[in-house]
Amino acid sequence: MKTEPSISTLHEGNFLRLQQVGRWEYVERTKANGVVAILAVTDEGNVILIEQYRPPLGKMIVEIPAGLSGDHAGAEGEPLIEAARRELLEETGYHAAKMEFLFEGPSSAGLTTETVTFFLARELVHIGPALGDGSEQIVQHEIPICEVEDWLAKRFLDGRAVDCKIYTALFLVRYQIGL
Amino acid sequence: MKTEPSISTLHEGNFLRLQQVGRWEYVERTKANGVVAILAVTDEGNVILIEQYRPPLGKMIVEIPAGLSGDHAGAEGEPLIEAARRELLEETGYHAAKMEFLFEGPSSAGLTTETVTFFLARELVHIGPALGDGSEQIVQHEIPICEVEDWLAKRFLDGRAVDCKIYTALFLVRYQIGL
Repeated sequence: MKTEPSISTLHEGNFLRLQQVGRWEYVERTKANGVVAILAVTDEGNVILIEQYRPPLGKMIVEIPAGLSGDHAGAEGEPLIEAARRELLEETGYHAAKMEFLFEGPSSAGLTTETVTFFLARELVHIGPALGDGSEQIVQHEIPICEVEDWLAKRFLDGRAVDCKIYTALFLVRYQIGL
Repeated sequence: MKTEPSISTLHEGNFLRLQQVGRWEYVERTKANGVVAILAVTDEGNVILIEQYRPPLGKMIVEIPAGLSGDHAGAEGEPLIEAARRELLEETGYHAAKMEFLFEGPSSAGLTTETVTFFLARELVHIGPALGDGSEQIVQHEIPICEVEDWLAKRFLDGRAVDCKIYTALFLVRYQIGL
């Protein structure tokens, strides 16, 4: 382990900060205490997937529900598990009575400080339509967990963008939970 | 699909560009045409994992071999599959006679334009020690593929950071290839 040179800020944005350490550039979030991603499985054995428009990529992306923790004024210390419940409800309309930690790891360790904390949501109750946060347009899919690989492969071959983290979460629940 | 507002540049770094579209901020790479990640499996059935120091996180991360495509002067049009062969050789000392495309998807769709292209490397020949690119310090592990989940889970419980993309790749090879 080398001694770390000092970190300098190249640009302070409203949500992201571009940093430099030595010659290495990377980005960090300024208004969140974490990122959560939720693999939600209904009592019928369906995985909930969403598609939403993502401005960086300029198109719809197939994902599991996910979002920032502690990014709302007055809730800066929001626990990750509470953020997972909130994001699942906002993006899908489902409340999860059971929310289990699966794993936490970096999403792109060369590019960003971001780590993603994965949860498995079960004992779901559909409370109402997905509300979003006012800016999100979301299409929801419920796919039997035994068919989800084929469903995703077909979407991918049809030219849809599929988020890497779906497969991270699916591997973890197969391995840790046996679903 | 909404009409996209114009994109503005908040900061042009040497390697990263901080962009804004509407109120959304995101980062893109300026000196690469892609990112590749390689799940390499030896003839003996071992998966090759590496640990390397990642400046954004300030610590060692357990990963599969990965790197940028087209980031060397004069090789801006480097094909992704060639970048995968080069990165594997640089980071592990293995040449892969067989390199198969697995999947491409965004690593963090809310944060960056980055997508990662996954390959499965087989028919490996160990040519020599890992060379790195002169800046990387890399620890290499070869783990039987049937034990890799347990090995990773143990590292994680020991407090090591494990990259999300390892699980993405493992899921894909289990599903698509049956390894």
